[in-house]
Amino acid sequence: MPTIIVNGAMMLVIAKNSRDDMVRAAIELLCERGYAGTSFGDVIERSGAPRGSIYHHFPGGKQQLVTEAVQRYTAGILRALDHAAESGGAVDLVRVFVDVVRSGLRASDFRRGCAIAAVTLDATPADAALLELTAESFQAWRSRIAAAFRRDGATEARARRLATLVVAAVEGALILARAEHDVAPITDVGRELEEHLSDSR
Amino acid sequence: MPTIIVNGAMMLVIAKNSRDDMVRAAIELLCERGYAGTSFGDVIERSGAPRGSIYHHFPGGKQQLVTEAVQRYTAGILRALDHAAESGGAVDLVRVFVDVVRSGLRASDFRRGCAIAAVTLDATPADAALLELTAESFQAWRSRIAAAFRRDGATEARARRLATLVVAAVEGALILARAEHDVAPITDVGRELEEHLSDSR
Repeated sequence: MPTIIVNGAMMLVIAKNSRDDMVRAAIELLCERGYAGTSFGDVIERSGAPRGSIYHHFPGGKQQLVTEAVQRYTAGILRALDHAAESGGAVDLVRVFVDVVRSGLRASDFRRGCAIAAVTLDATPADAALLELTAESFQAWRSRIAAAFRRDGATEARARRLATLVVAAVEGALILARAEHDVAPITDVGRELEEHLSDSR
Repeated sequence: MPTIIVNGAMMLVIAKNSRDDMVRAAIELLCERGYAGTSFGDVIERSGAPRGSIYHHFPGGKQQLVTEAVQRYTAGILRALDHAAESGGAVDLVRVFVDVVRSGLRASDFRRGCAIAAVTLDATPADAALLELTAESFQAWRSRIAAAFRRDGATEARARRLATLVVAAVEGALILARAEHDVAPITDVGRELEEHLSDSR
């Protein structure tokens, strides 16, 4: 990160970077310790951003920061699914989803789960807007996967059920894997899902 | 709850009840707002127990209380699985697991998820002992379900994979259902699991 501010444009670059850093830090912390366990102070410490800047960038407070973190995390998974959909069928999307989740868990030494699940589980009635947002995230992933099942010939209802099974099973396997400090539950679930999909064809 | 203490024995009864109430309140709160979002103060308020009594009953603090909550929650699911196993096969255990989770979510107006998942997602490296405990909970459920698959004729490896898929898919479906305020994801996943199990026979 540049340390000398030479003009207004450079200042803007710095500001943008620190904003990005804060959203990235928020995603990491949500994945590691959940929504209730993540404070503005934690995000400042993790991102290395100046204390005052977080209030400047996120005048809506923790809710605004977490909203952006949820949206960015959701979009990252969607990009991976869309990339797989360009050249493959539903089973390829399932493989990519399993791989993304498994490699994220491994890369973080089993410390990071899913940011969307983390927000859902800690949300109280006061966080209704965030809960709606997490519902939209899960829906977005499921509808991308369901579209691939429909392209493969499944009926609309079956495609919906299969996509729900895939997202649910991978989310659940991530929790088991994190608790056990072992990717085996994700690998086992990936294998059973592929078997189920080949039986269903 | 008796309000007049007539002798030492009665005092013991009161103490035991309030201890139970605190563990029950802790389970509810973990299911509703996660591990990081549940404080001793919340448990006292929810259980209606006298403030000082929580330190008396749980000298090991929040960790001790949550440990007992996790153990009791785990045992409750195991009892339901064991009851189903007395007269049925693996598919009956799966149905019971799906039903228990779905009815718990409905009964709480979509506010309560799984206490074990909640502790797993909020656990930091400082909570390593709790994470080991949640791994044991998931393992206990899976091994009960895997035993039923083995009795139905599955190999050991297949029974393990199928049981992992069942627990993961139901845990994940519970998160989706909670986010969406709708039991449909649990129902969809239950139906796909039954289909998968009948294909696998």
